[in-house]
Order: sequence, then structure tokens, then C-alpha cells
Amino acid sequence: MDRIGVADTMFARYDMGAEAVDELEHCPLHGDRFEIRRRTVPGFKDLGVACKKLIVEEGCAIVVALAMPGRAAIDQVCAHEASQGIMLAQLLTGTHVLEVFVHENEEDDPALLAAVCVDRARKHARNAYWMLYEPEQLTRRAGQGIRQGYEDAGPIATPSL
Amino acid sequence: MDRIGVADTMFARYDMGAEAVDELEHCPLHGDRFEIRRRTVPGFKDLGVACKKLIVEEGCAIVVALAMPGRAAIDQVCAHEASQGIMLAQLLTGTHVLEVFVHENEEDDPALLAAVCVDRARKHARNAYWMLYEPEQLTRRAGQGIRQGYEDAGPIATPSL
Amino acid sequence: MDRIGVADTMFARYDMGAEAVDELEHCPLHGDRFEIRRRTVPGFKDLGVACKKLIVEEGCAIVVALAMPGRAAIDQVCAHEASQGIMLAQLLTGTHVLEVFVHENEEDDPALLAAVCVDRARKHARNAYWMLYEPEQLTRRAGQGIRQGYEDAGPIATPSL
Amino acid sequence: MDRIGVADTMFARYDMGAEAVDELEHCPLHGDRFEIRRRTVPGFKDLGVACKKLIVEEGCAIVVALAMPGRAAIDQVCAHEASQGIMLAQLLTGTHVLEVFVHENEEDDPALLAAVCVDRARKHARNAYWMLYEPEQLTRRAGQGIRQGYEDAGPIATPSL
Amino acid sequence: MDRIGVADTMFARYDMGAEAVDELEHCPLHGDRFEIRRRTVPGFKDLGVACKKLIVEEGCAIVVALAMPGRAAIDQVCAHEASQGIMLAQLLTGTHVLEVFVHENEEDDPALLAAVCVDRARKHARNAYWMLYEPEQLTRRAGQGIRQGYEDAGPIATPSL
Repeated sequence: MDRIGVADTMFARYDMGAEAVDELEHCPLHGDRFEIRRRTVPGFKDLGVACKKLIVEEGCAIVVALAMPGRAAIDQVCAHEASQGIMLAQLLTGTHVLEVFVHENEEDDPALLAAVCVDRARKHARNAYWMLYEPEQLTRRAGQGIRQGYEDAGPIATPSL
Repeated sequence: MDRIGVADTMFARYDMGAEAVDELEHCPLHGDRFEIRRRTVPGFKDLGVACKKLIVEEGCAIVVALAMPGRAAIDQVCAHEASQGIMLAQLLTGTHVLEVFVHENEEDDPALLAAVCVDRARKHARNAYWMLYEPEQLTRRAGQGIRQGYEDAGPIATPSL
Repeated sequence: MDRIGVADTMFARYDMGAEAVDELEHCPLHGDRFEIRRRTVPGFKDLGVACKKLIVEEGCAIVVALAMPGRAAIDQVCAHEASQGIMLAQLLTGTHVLEVFVHENEEDDPALLAAVCVDRARKHARNAYWMLYEPEQLTRRAGQGIRQGYEDAGPIATPSL
Repeated sequence: MDRIGVADTMFARYDMGAEAVDELEHCPLHGDRFEIRRRTVPGFKDLGVACKKLIVEEGCAIVVALAMPGRAAIDQVCAHEASQGIMLAQLLTGTHVLEVFVHENEEDDPALLAAVCVDRARKHARNAYWMLYEPEQLTRRAGQGIRQGYEDAGPIATPSL
Repeated sequence: MDRIGVADTMFARYDMGAEAVDELEHCPLHGDRFEIRRRTVPGFKDLGVACKKLIVEEGCAIVVALAMPGRAAIDQVCAHEASQGIMLAQLLTGTHVLEVFVHENEEDDPALLAAVCVDRARKHARNAYWMLYEPEQLTRRAGQGIRQGYEDAGPIATPSL
């Protein structure tokens, strides 16, 4: 049985991990080809090693890492450090970790912010599933301006030569 | 016997390491399942390798790393470098290090700053304990806007679909 | 048979990967000495490990990694993180990855932006080919102010001694 | 016989390496328990690998790395890169390297700047000695606001609970 | 026979690699104790892995890496990334790489810019030679404010105690 990991934080103000888990549970091969492993850490700087542990210790073939950087300036620096940790986890293990960060300052309205959380968490959970079992779904959308959290930007036109 | 590491600095203006040690000594399994190893270094840029040594040489299963970046602009760059060192220590060892930094400019009033030090050091010491022995404490609080040093921010509401 | 990898994203708003593949298919040794492996990921932060997988798992001797960072400030930070991932992939594998990033804010006119995408993707695909099979093409152009996406800047004059 | 390394640069405008060497030569166990190895490189970006070589090739148990970043904006970026190299040297070898950087813009008066160089170089040389042979000297000063180059900042008061 | 590597780019607007090669060819032990290996890549972000290849695949004992970051803001970020790659190449191999970057915005006058290129490339080529065969040349100049590309800054006076 394959495993897909979900790593999230207590710091985030929306339970994005639960959204990712629910999305994965509704994927066609859940229970047949893969099961889910979840790990919650205090804050996003703890995600890097949590992802590495999900991969190395729990055998996850791919991980979705979810977090919500706060509004303060220092939070942006910390988000950068957290991203570097997730990047390092990927490169050291040779395994994809899809980073799902929703910055608290993306939306002032909590309802809109929560909607971004739901959409981004679910789309990236689906991306993780595709990367493992249907990679052609991604190639088909190459260069199409696909977004998570918001509507797709779409492609720009091919230059007339 | 497991070991939990505490790494701190001479540079910090409050003895956060002592707070973390005291909190850990009051955790249920102290003395039965785990003991504490402490290591003090000159400044926070020395914490990364100190944490690695606590993990690799002293066998710590998790480490709490405490520091107080100063008010100068250069201190912010150094804090970033220190964080990258702690991140690298985690990724290279596959072991969690909870970074407990209290920036001296978080509070102008020394009494308030000291209170932040106490609260953040103790809560993260408790987090370290939970991560080892009660991980469900963290999952239960996933996405709940949990903070250390200050009051919890709390969760935002689920969007009505 | 050697392999040249092409890694690209769904996020990009132009199918730069297709341009690189087409350029490589028109190189003299295509089909005789090398074949192409393509892998599409959600966004550019996923390129680092995708390149490592193309090198380690698929045996690519060189990779072209293509992406389009967006216009927002946060996109610049993410581009930096993505570049660091690609750098790490190169250094850990000892294999070249040519980074082909077209920043969406390089041109306001979509037609001009697309033209930059085409030119930069194709020139770097050709560079990858040269690095494998005709390295003297690069040495011959050392210090000549060669550009991709735009016209060459050209060399500055030798100082009269 | 243990070894303590001293790495410094031709770029620096004060011979901080000589100060560190002199301080170490006056430590109680010099000649009995440890000897000194010195290595000078062109600039501070060369210190990271110089430290690694002192540790791996020369068997140093700890290293003091001294440099003077210049006044230009680019020097600050280079100092950051140099620090990252020193950090990496530490993490890859599991060995402490005490970074002793005196920024040329810390003082306008050359006499004051030189005094900072002397004080910081000597105090960190002593710290290196303590870390190897008297680590309790550091723990005793944990959280006491200890500084190098300037007077100690001192501790802030414990909050009244 | 030892080998000294020279890595440079097509992007640079002056053939700094040729200057470094010429300087090395005029060093006393050229042809007797060492020979030169040169490798040209598209841009400076490709230098890190090029240096690693010169060291690991071609057996170079030291490398000189030359590049010219452009005038745009994005070029500064890329230069930082390129430097990090060169740093990583050094730390992973335990081998010195002397980074010779001439920023295009150091001089507005092309003739002056070219003169900086020549001076910096040649002095660092000589430094590489010294580091291998005459390291005492560097120690003798420790803390003397030595510069490449411009005149030496010189030392500041020793503080009167």
C-alpha cells in the first residue's frame, strides 16, 4: 500500500490539513492503492523535518505540507525559512512535497481567506494524487496558467511568427 | 532513557534555557522515560551545530533551541542565518528542533519581554514533550491558531458553502 | 541512448516546455544519441526535485527547467526559493540544470512576453545540447555577452594597456 | 594533541587572526592539550571551505573564523553568503566554528574599529577554548547578555509572577 | 600533474577566463606541477555545478570561477544564487573555488570596467596558485586590506593600548 503524507501546523488559523485529508479520501484509489499519514507540528518551520520523517520513517511517496504564514514582517522571513526547509526535505529524499501556504494577508475577510484555504488545500491534494497516479493530467495542463486558491490565470497567446 | 536537548546562548538577555529545563522537569515522564541535556553556546549562530551535536553525540530525540536576536538591523540577518543553521541541523539528522527565538524588539518594556520569554520557552518545551510522547495533542489543535509567547490567535470560521 | 530532461510547470502561462522539446527534437543527434524525457509539475518550487528525479531516476545527463514567476512580490521570493532548489539539485547530482525563468513582469505586452518565452526556451535547449555534445560552442563564446530571450549584449572592448 | 584552528583573510584591514592566535597561546592548556593551526584566505567567502579543511584535513576540534566585511551594500550580501558557508562547514562536520566578523561600518574611527577587532577576536578565541575545555563557563553565563567587541548588555529582570 | 580549473560564462561581457588562463600560464610551476582545465557555461548560475565537475570529474585541486552580473535588480538576486551554488560546490568537495565576480555596475565606463576585469581575474588566478603552492604568501598579507580589481585598502592602525 502506498502512502501519501499530510503535514500541517497548530499555528494555522484554518484546518487545511483536514481539507487535504478529505480530498485525498475522495480520490479513486484511496484505500486500494494508497493510505494517508498525517502529522501536525507547532509551526511551519517544523514542516521540513516533519515531511522528511513522513517520507523516510513512514514511507510516504509524496507529501502535502500546509501552513498559514501570519501578517507580521517577521512572518515573511520565517515563511522563507520554512520553504527552504521543505525544499531541502525534497532534495535530500528525492521526493515531492507540495507546499500549500496561504498567507494570512492574502485576504482581509476571514470568509474569503478560509475559501482560499479550502481551494488551495484541495487542489494541491489532488495534484499530489495526480503526480503519483495520473502524471499525464499535469503534462496536459503544462503552461496553462493553472492556479490553486484562486481561478486559473490561463495561458497567453502563442506569438504569431 | 530518552533524552531531550536544550540549547541556549550567553547572548540572550533572559535565561530562557532555565525556563525550558524547568518546564521539562515538570513533565510527567521526566526521569522515567527521558532526561535532559543542556548546552550553552556564545550566540544563536552557534545553535545549529550545537543542536546537531546534542542529537548525534548525545542522542537527543528532540531539541529546544532558545535565543534572543538583538534590536540592530544586522541582528535580523544573523537571526535568519541562525535559523537556517537550525533548519539544516534538523534536515541532516531527521530530528525536530523547536526554535524559540524572542526578538528583543518584540516588546520595549523589559518586564513584558521577559514574560514573552517565559511563556514561549515553556510552551515550546511542552510542545517538544508532546511531539515525543503525546503527538495527538498537536493533531487535536491543528489549524487552531495556537501561539507561543502570546495568546492564541484562534481559528477563523469555516466558509459556508 | 543518452537522455535530456525537460521539466516545466502548469503555473506558467506559456508552454515553454513544448518549445524546448521541439528545439531538442531538431538537434542533429536527436534519436541517435539522445532521447527526451519530460515532466510537468504544479509550480516552480516543484522543479528542483523534479530535476533530481529526471537525473537520478530517469538517467538524464542534463535538464532544462522552465518556469514563469508571476508579477506579485511574493512570487519573487518564491522564484528565489525555486532557484535554490534547482541549484541544490545540480550540486547534489553533479549534473547541469539550465534554469529558464521568464518573469511575467519582463514584458507588459503578452505577445512580447510570449516571444521572450520562445527565444529563451529554445536557446537554452540548444545550450543544453551543446554542453553535452559540442562544448567548444560555449568556450568560443566565452565573455561575449550572450543572452537568451533578448538580443546579445555583446562584449566590451579590451582595455588598451 | 588537540588542535584549534584560526582562519582569517587578506581582505580584513586589521590582523584579527594574530589577536586570536595570541589569546589562544595564553590559554592554560596551550602546548599541553592543544596546538594552533592557522590558514589565511583571500576573502571571507573563502572561509567556509577553509574551516572545513582545518577540521577535516588538519583535525581541528574547533575553529575561530575572522573577517571584516566592507562598507559597501554588496559587502553585506557577501557577508551573508560567507556566513552561510561557515554555517554549512559546521553542519557538515558537526564541529563548532566561531564566526568573528567585524563590519567596517561598526565604527567610523579607525582606532575604535581596531579596538572592536581586538576585543571580539580575543573573547571569541577564549570562548573557543572554553567550549572545548571548560563548557561550564558558558552555561554559567546563559542568558546574561554577554557580548564580544563591546561591553556586555547584561540580563533583563525576571518577571514578577 | 595537478590541475587548476577555470570556469567562466558566455553571459559575461569580457573574457575574464582568458585573463585567468594567461596569468596561470605565467606562474612558475605551470606545465611542471600543474596544468589548466577550462569550462565555459551559459550563465553564472551554471558555475556551481561546473566547478564541482571540474573538481570531481577532472580532478582540479582549486578552481577560479569568473562572471559578470548584469545591471538589473534581478541580476543581483541571481548573483546571490550563483554565489550560493559556488559555496555549496566548495563545501561539498572540500575544495577552494575563488569567486571572481565583476558587477557590470561597478563602473559606467567600459574601459574602466574592463580594467577591473583584468586586474581581478589575474590577481585571483595568482591567489589560486599561491593557495596551492605558496600559502605563506597569504598569511604574510593577513589583515592587510588586500583587494582585487582595485588598489589595496591597506590596514588600519593597531590601537594604542
